[in-house]
Amino acid sequence: MSKIILANTTTKTYDRALKEKIKAENVKLVNQIVEFQRRMYSDGRHNLLIIFQGMDASGKDGATRKVFSGVNPLGIKVHAYKKPTDKEFAHDFLWRIHQNVPQQGMIQVFNRSHYEDILVPTIEGYFEESYIEKRYQHINDFEKLLIEGNNTTILKFYLHTSKEEQLERLTERIEIPEKYWKHNDKDWETRKKWDSYMSVYEQIFEKCNQPEWHIIPSDRNWEKENHIAKIVLKAFEEMDLKYPALDSELFKEKGM
Amino acid sequence: MSKIILANTTTKTYDRALKEKIKAENVKLVNQIVEFQRRMYSDGRHNLLIIFQGMDASGKDGATRKVFSGVNPLGIKVHAYKKPTDKEFAHDFLWRIHQNVPQQGMIQVFNRSHYEDILVPTIEGYFEESYIEKRYQHINDFEKLLIEGNNTTILKFYLHTSKEEQLERLTERIEIPEKYWKHNDKDWETRKKWDSYMSVYEQIFEKCNQPEWHIIPSDRNWEKENHIAKIVLKAFEEMDLKYPALDSELFKEKGM
Repeated sequence: MSKIILANTTTKTYDRALKEKIKAENVKLVNQIVEFQRRMYSDGRHNLLIIFQGMDASGKDGATRKVFSGVNPLGIKVHAYKKPTDKEFAHDFLWRIHQNVPQQGMIQVFNRSHYEDILVPTIEGYFEESYIEKRYQHINDFEKLLIEGNNTTILKFYLHTSKEEQLERLTERIEIPEKYWKHNDKDWETRKKWDSYMSVYEQIFEKCNQPEWHIIPSDRNWEKENHIAKIVLKAFEEMDLKYPALDSELFKEKGM
Repeated sequence: MSKIILANTTTKTYDRALKEKIKAENVKLVNQIVEFQRRMYSDGRHNLLIIFQGMDASGKDGATRKVFSGVNPLGIKVHAYKKPTDKEFAHDFLWRIHQNVPQQGMIQVFNRSHYEDILVPTIEGYFEESYIEKRYQHINDFEKLLIEGNNTTILKFYLHTSKEEQLERLTERIEIPEKYWKHNDKDWETRKKWDSYMSVYEQIFEKCNQPEWHIIPSDRNWEKENHIAKIVLKAFEEMDLKYPALDSELFKEKGM
């Protein structure tokens, strides 16, 4: 069965008490992330790349804001990938991606990523299938380089909103004045190709599964944030982060 | 037999008439390169990455100056790689390389390259062998990305000077005041490890041979330049470069 269908996102009904409980838990999780990030920064042997993919209005911005609020801005960067510029188009598709990968000690968030360079060309038919097939391999090679070559931990999240929930969110953007700025005609065009997107995503999950994709039920933001925060914390725990020992010729005798 | 030993660089004796003939030919070859580069720039479907490797004083700067003199500076960039900075060290070793790869229409010259990241760590024993082995694979994957992902033509040149010729050139740098600026104590240290360098180069030629390495006899500069220019021209010829047709709505009727 497809990974996406397994994600439980079809209902918004929930227990109010549960919601409050999860939201309280999220506050604690975020505090732990803040602490872990500080340790990763001083440790200097690890770095974290967070990839957020998802359909329009799936809450990628919100996930970044909520899960990483409180992290020292010195230790985190966010890059949102748009349609490539002329200059970017004049290079291989990973050129602009590589420029923004995290350096040691840092968290880097990608709001959309190199996976767009498979999604859009496949759905719009910009390239031959055999050419796109090569991109899957290039991506796998590239992610391997980051992992082996700089000890990067890559966490890939697909934020899955149901088609009904997307309709509700896009509609708000043309009905609520405070949300007008989020509206984009193109989102409604893309929505028509929903099934095609799902099918390409399934291929991506299958062919680029090292490291694996996390499919996050995202109709309820507090649930989405809870899933993501827990996965981030697990990754931090596996890094075995340490505050480094004192590195000093002057104070060697302290034995620190 | 090793590729390097096969390169005929052991004698500086030559026919003066031959030298004049080759130098006159070089002028013509360089002019052809200038013309081809102009066409590649306007064509916009190809780009060229030139990699120069070689021991100290093997004439990498000179090769760049002589073979590409006259090329419109708009269409060519040169990047010399030094010891990585702290910021570069905080990324995978190909991070700084990827930033400087050519965009469509351009020639990019690398004076030293990602191959230094195999040479130096192997000889100095900075990493485990198994880790360096991964770098060979990362380099092959990366070069494949440039070729498949942006239609880059990669020409790899090893400029081979004999050990005797290097001694002569390094000695000039401590005896001729106009050449003092080229002197570096470290070159004499590296020279002691000549055989180790040759053996790592042999491994590089073998493991990273797609695209292949060109071993250029470089004791005589005019001979070196002649070899390089011919290989560059051959690469241009294989690109099948064209000045593009007129792209105009206004002047469509001209049928250009």
